[in-house]
Amino acid sequence: MLNERKIAVIGFGSIGRTFVRLLTAKSHYIKKLAELRVVAVADSKGMVLKPSGFSDYELIKLCELPLSGLRSLPESLDLDIDLLYSEVQPDIHVELTPANYETGEPGLSNIVNAINNHAHVVTANKAPLALRFSELMDLARKNEVKIGFRSTVMGGTPLIDMLLSIRSYSVESIHGILNATTNFMLTEMHEKLIPMEEALRRAQAIGIAETDPRLDLDGWDSAAKIVILSNVVRREIKLQNVIREPLKVELSDIAECLRNNNVIKYVAALEPDGKAYVKPMKLSRRDPLAGVDGTLNAVRIGTTIGEITLVGKGGGRIETAHNVLDDVIGVML
Amino acid sequence: MLNERKIAVIGFGSIGRTFVRLLTAKSHYIKKLAELRVVAVADSKGMVLKPSGFSDYELIKLCELPLSGLRSLPESLDLDIDLLYSEVQPDIHVELTPANYETGEPGLSNIVNAINNHAHVVTANKAPLALRFSELMDLARKNEVKIGFRSTVMGGTPLIDMLLSIRSYSVESIHGILNATTNFMLTEMHEKLIPMEEALRRAQAIGIAETDPRLDLDGWDSAAKIVILSNVVRREIKLQNVIREPLKVELSDIAECLRNNNVIKYVAALEPDGKAYVKPMKLSRRDPLAGVDGTLNAVRIGTTIGEITLVGKGGGRIETAHNVLDDVIGVML
Repeated sequence: MLNERKIAVIGFGSIGRTFVRLLTAKSHYIKKLAELRVVAVADSKGMVLKPSGFSDYELIKLCELPLSGLRSLPESLDLDIDLLYSEVQPDIHVELTPANYETGEPGLSNIVNAINNHAHVVTANKAPLALRFSELMDLARKNEVKIGFRSTVMGGTPLIDMLLSIRSYSVESIHGILNATTNFMLTEMHEKLIPMEEALRRAQAIGIAETDPRLDLDGWDSAAKIVILSNVVRREIKLQNVIREPLKVELSDIAECLRNNNVIKYVAALEPDGKAYVKPMKLSRRDPLAGVDGTLNAVRIGTTIGEITLVGKGGGRIETAHNVLDDVIGVML
Repeated sequence: MLNERKIAVIGFGSIGRTFVRLLTAKSHYIKKLAELRVVAVADSKGMVLKPSGFSDYELIKLCELPLSGLRSLPESLDLDIDLLYSEVQPDIHVELTPANYETGEPGLSNIVNAINNHAHVVTANKAPLALRFSELMDLARKNEVKIGFRSTVMGGTPLIDMLLSIRSYSVESIHGILNATTNFMLTEMHEKLIPMEEALRRAQAIGIAETDPRLDLDGWDSAAKIVILSNVVRREIKLQNVIREPLKVELSDIAECLRNNNVIKYVAALEPDGKAYVKPMKLSRRDPLAGVDGTLNAVRIGTTIGEITLVGKGGGRIETAHNVLDDVIGVML
């Protein structure tokens, strides 16, 4: 039996709530590993603290608040991460704020703050890692804490752990379909011959695309993921050096592809020469990535001793929440 | 900089030699992690010990001996694992002896001996784990040592580490093509319409099938692998309960499959109800396993939050040696 661990959940949108619900649902299983107590929950507008830990019932009630609704509670405080750390001293910081690829904020400052306070970090927010991967890893090493980030890429598939376990040989190239929204749209376009705008509306209707889908369609999401994967395999590249070509596909392009037995996919890649890009590409039907449809993700990894292909879920709330929880368990062990 | 680690290499056939050569080739890289010294090398007939560690030159000379040739050296001793442990006290025991699925020996006794002597174990020999998985893991936990075994299944692909990282959800089923020899044979039969005997001769000619191929063709190798994978995901099954149907495919079966757009694959599986089997199966061309050809391996993992498919190299000497080395690094860290 391990000791008590105090956990702070920063970011309380759909992923944050799904994660907190999962924690309560799995509390019996988690108790075998550690006494895990949620001592802080914060959204963009407010935060609630409880040094002794919220009960499962209290956590579920929090999940029923409207989005950004923590401040409506009488006990709510203004969001203040310094105050949070001084009041409840969390051991594990779970960062589930949205990605901002210009500044990395608020995730970047939150994570730096957590590490400097000697808390382990688990993040599903890609932006801080995509912008400052090696600095954050160095800072974590110096403070003897871990950073879990398996949910940042292929959120439903434990790819990162597989890559981290490769040590005696090298990864030379990565080719992936890493964004579920755009892959769903392209699959719809190929199968139903609908224009891109209509495919986007369908993705929004089933809840996989954001109301503002630009992070997906402009390639930021895929670019951040290829940067994270590349850094994991010790190929350091920078987000600003990833060539991003936004997804813009006409129905006539799709029709031409179908005639030639090709498929258009939105591919994120690291090439052996270090060039990294995100762009729509025509793939032959024989390409292992060509058959990866809908919200599936896939990655083809070229190593000095051969190729590995992994296909699995790209994300989804419950899948991402499970991977966040697996990271929380991982940093505790 | 970590401390000095003493390593014993038990089993000195083709994998053992490839591993020792890789150690010498990578010695510069390994030095950054630890001072790794090979203090014992043993084959089925003899052993050589050097408490201060063999030099890279001495190791390469050992690799040039004929198979089972250690005893020809003047300093060679009769194989005696107890004597080996009392003389050189290795920290890491690398077990590369051949698999015996009846008794597990000599690997099983060697591994138990190593653990009882508080050495970490890295094994590419599947039989001890396939026969005594949970006992060996319990014994290792009790003695506070690790067992690395990533090279036992899909030797060229870090599948085991990925599965070990799944903690908060469950694996419900596994379907795999886990034996490279039989998959190569079946691919040759489909592509060149040759009989099974001829396909076997070709596999032997290119060095991927043993002179005695029964462990592959009777399904023992695949069965051992499905047992190890199942136990890794906490689905405990026993080797004797895996239903094994030997690979016996006629050219007429292949012809019929080709007419119906199917493929015959030698599939190892764990079903949700706990049933495990190895048998030739007709797969539709749309099945993700159907396109896995030649010496590639693949595994489709059904989890409570979706499916993961991994395709990569099944084995090969250098690939397996790399995975053994990655395990050695893993147990040291």
